[in-house]
Amino acid sequence: MSHRIIFIVFDGLGDRPIPALNNLTPLEAAQTPNLDALAKIGINGLIHTIERSIRPGSDVAHLSLFGYDPRKYYRGRGPFEAAGIGMILKPGDIAFRGNVSTQNEKGIIIDRRAGRIDSVENLAKSINNLKIDDVTVHAKAGVGHRIAIVLRGLNLSDEITDTDPHHLNSTILNSRPKNDTKQAKKTADIVNQLTQKVNQIFAIHPVNENRRRNKLPEANCLLLRGAGIMTDFPPFKEKYGFNACCIAGGGLYKGIARILGMDIIEVKGATGKPKTNPKSKIQSLIENFDNYDFFFIHFKGADTCAEDGDYLGKKEYLEYVDKELSPVVKYVYKNQALCIVTGDHSTSSRLKSHTADEVPVLVAGLDVRVDDVFKMGERSAQRGGLGHIDGRHLMRYIDNIVGKEPLYGN
Amino acid sequence: MSHRIIFIVFDGLGDRPIPALNNLTPLEAAQTPNLDALAKIGINGLIHTIERSIRPGSDVAHLSLFGYDPRKYYRGRGPFEAAGIGMILKPGDIAFRGNVSTQNEKGIIIDRRAGRIDSVENLAKSINNLKIDDVTVHAKAGVGHRIAIVLRGLNLSDEITDTDPHHLNSTILNSRPKNDTKQAKKTADIVNQLTQKVNQIFAIHPVNENRRRNKLPEANCLLLRGAGIMTDFPPFKEKYGFNACCIAGGGLYKGIARILGMDIIEVKGATGKPKTNPKSKIQSLIENFDNYDFFFIHFKGADTCAEDGDYLGKKEYLEYVDKELSPVVKYVYKNQALCIVTGDHSTSSRLKSHTADEVPVLVAGLDVRVDDVFKMGERSAQRGGLGHIDGRHLMRYIDNIVGKEPLYGN
Repeated sequence: MSHRIIFIVFDGLGDRPIPALNNLTPLEAAQTPNLDALAKIGINGLIHTIERSIRPGSDVAHLSLFGYDPRKYYRGRGPFEAAGIGMILKPGDIAFRGNVSTQNEKGIIIDRRAGRIDSVENLAKSINNLKIDDVTVHAKAGVGHRIAIVLRGLNLSDEITDTDPHHLNSTILNSRPKNDTKQAKKTADIVNQLTQKVNQIFAIHPVNENRRRNKLPEANCLLLRGAGIMTDFPPFKEKYGFNACCIAGGGLYKGIARILGMDIIEVKGATGKPKTNPKSKIQSLIENFDNYDFFFIHFKGADTCAEDGDYLGKKEYLEYVDKELSPVVKYVYKNQALCIVTGDHSTSSRLKSHTADEVPVLVAGLDVRVDDVFKMGERSAQRGGLGHIDGRHLMRYIDNIVGKEPLYGN
Repeated sequence: MSHRIIFIVFDGLGDRPIPALNNLTPLEAAQTPNLDALAKIGINGLIHTIERSIRPGSDVAHLSLFGYDPRKYYRGRGPFEAAGIGMILKPGDIAFRGNVSTQNEKGIIIDRRAGRIDSVENLAKSINNLKIDDVTVHAKAGVGHRIAIVLRGLNLSDEITDTDPHHLNSTILNSRPKNDTKQAKKTADIVNQLTQKVNQIFAIHPVNENRRRNKLPEANCLLLRGAGIMTDFPPFKEKYGFNACCIAGGGLYKGIARILGMDIIEVKGATGKPKTNPKSKIQSLIENFDNYDFFFIHFKGADTCAEDGDYLGKKEYLEYVDKELSPVVKYVYKNQALCIVTGDHSTSSRLKSHTADEVPVLVAGLDVRVDDVFKMGERSAQRGGLGHIDGRHLMRYIDNIVGKEPLYGN
C-alpha cells in the first residue's frame, strides 16, 4: 500500500504564555497525549507560514502550507469563499463576498444582515446567470444573509473598490477602479450596474413581498467586498502526485481545497464552530482511508476561542480534539501513514488576533529523523530537529520524505 | 501606558573563543547579571545583520537592524557622518567625509590631520554655502581635523572616486567619474573645482596666518572620501509607529538615527570612547521615559576594545555597562517595557576586525515566548527560541510582539 499522508491543521494553534496558565500557552497547558505521542516519535519545529514575522490571515497561510506562494496566487478572499460554497471558478473570474442587506427608501443601509434572514437562496437564483454587457453574473447563497458573486467575461480586473460601506447608516458605495486600466474601469462599471439591477429585482421579489407582509426587514440590496481574480492554480495532484481530500467545516478551507482540486468530504456536524464534532472528522478519515492518499483535516475551534480571548476554551478545545486522535496515532505506529500536525498561524488569546509568532509543526512516520521533543508545544518545538521552517517548504519536505521530490541536477 | 521599547545595541558585541579566557568569548566570560536576567525571562537567538556570513560595517549593520535593507538604502558612509554632526540632508545630496590636512608648497600631503588641529570650525564656515556652477557646497566641522561636505544640486552622482589619497607623500587626487553618466562627470568636476577653491580660500585664511606665525602645520587643504548619495528613507515613525529617540555617543549612530527621523538625546559624557559613561545614558532613558516609546541606546566600547585586540578590556567593558542596566531590568519586570539587546556585528579580538559571526540577541518582556536560555552569550544563544534571524526581520518581530504588525491576507 502506498503511503497515506494525514495533514492536520489547527487554525490559530500557536499562542503566547498566559500568566493564568502558569505562563504556559494553551497548547502547552493542554493534556494532549496523542499529539505528544506523535511529537515523541516524530520530528518537530516551528513554522512561519509566509516569512519570519509576517502576520498572516488564514487564507494566505493555508495557501502557503500547501506550497502555493500567496504572493503569486492570492488576490483577495472572494474566490475562496465562492469555491467554499461549491462554485466552480475559472482563471480570470472575479469573485466577491457579498451580504444581502436592508436599505431604507433613501438607500441607507439599516441592517447589514437583512434581519438575520435564514437563507437567500431564492434571491441568489433570481440574479444567477444575469447578463450585464458581455459579462455573466453567477450568484450562490451562503449561510444566512451571505452570498457569493462571480463575474465571468473578458478583460475583467479585481483592482476595484468595495460597494460594501462596512458599516451602517451609509448608502451602498459606488465601486471605483483602483487604477487607470480599461479592465478596472469596465469591472467597476459592471459592478455598479449590478447593484442597480439587484435593487430592481429584489424589490419586487416574492421573498420581499412576503417579508413586507410579515413586517420583516426587506432583503433588498447587495453589498460586495473582497474582490479577487481567480488565478491559475496548478492542481495539487499535479504538483505533488497525491490524490487528496479535504475534511473541514469552514467554507474558506473547503474553498481553498476545491480550488486546488481536492475532493471535499462533507462531514456531519462539521460546522466550523468551536464545538464541531472532531470524532466525525476522524471517522471520515477512517472511512475514506482506502480512497485517497492525502487527507487535509482542518479544526477551527482553537482560533475561534483565541479570537474571543478565551485561552481556557482554547486549551480545552485542543484536549477535546486530541482525545479523538488515537486512530491517527495508530496509523502512524503501524507505518500506514505519515502524519503532519501544525497550524496556519498563531492567535494570541490576549491580543485576540492573529500574530506572526511561529507555529509548532510535527511530522511523524516512517523515514523521519526523530528528535528529542516529547511534547507538542511552542517551546518544546524550539528544540526540534526541523528548526524554523518556511511554510512554503513544508509540502516539499513531505514529498521528499515519501520519495516523490524530483531530482535537481544529476 | 503604551508599550515602551528599549533597543540596546552593543557595537561589536559578539566574539570568538579566547584561549586565555578558558575558550570563552569576552561576553561569555563577563559577569553580566542584568543581561543574564533579561536572557532568562526573554527569548534568545543569533542575528546575522545582513545575511549569513556577510561581514558588515557598523553603518550597514545598524540600517539593517532598524529594518532598512542597506542594499536599497546604503550608498556610502558620507550621509551618516554628515547627519551625525547635525547636518540636515535631502534626497539627492552627495555627502563626503573630509579631512582638513597639510600640503607643502609642491602640493604633497605631509600631515593628514593638519598637526592635530583642535577645530576646523572657522575654516568650514569659510567654504559653507560656496556656489560652484549650479551646486551649493555645505560644510560643517566635526571633531578635530574632521569636516563633512555636502553637495546640493540637480543631477549629481556618488559614483566618483575619492580625492583623499589615503596615505602621506602623495598629492591630492583628482576625483574621477566611475561611469560614463553626465551626473558622475559633473560631480567629479565640481569636486575638483572645490579642491582648487579650498586651496585658495584656506591659504589666506586668518586661521593659517595664525598657524604660520606659531610655526604650526597649516590647515591648507581638503581631502574627501566616502561619497554617498542621500536616498529617500521612509521615516522610522511611519514604518513602525514608534516615536523614537537615540541615546548614543558616536557620530555615526546619531547620524543614522537622525536620518531615520529619531530625536537625538545629547548625553553628557557620551563620547563614543570605551570609557564612555553608561550611567548617564541609562539616566537619559529614565528622564525621557514618558516622552518617547522607542529608545535606541548605543554602547561603543566593546567594539573599540576588540579592534585593539583587548579581549580583557572588552569583557570588563561589558561588565561595566551591565552594572548600570538594573533600571532596564526593572522596567521589563514591571511590564513597562519590552527590551531588546543585541549587537550590530561581531568583532574578533584576535583578528582585531569585524567578523560575519552571528551576534546574540534577546527580547524580554510581555508576550514573549520564553525559552530555556539563562545567560546572554554566543553559545547559549544557539539554543534560543528565536533561532537564527535576519537583521532585517528584527523590527518586524518587535512590531508583531506589540501587536502593530499589519495583517497580510484575510
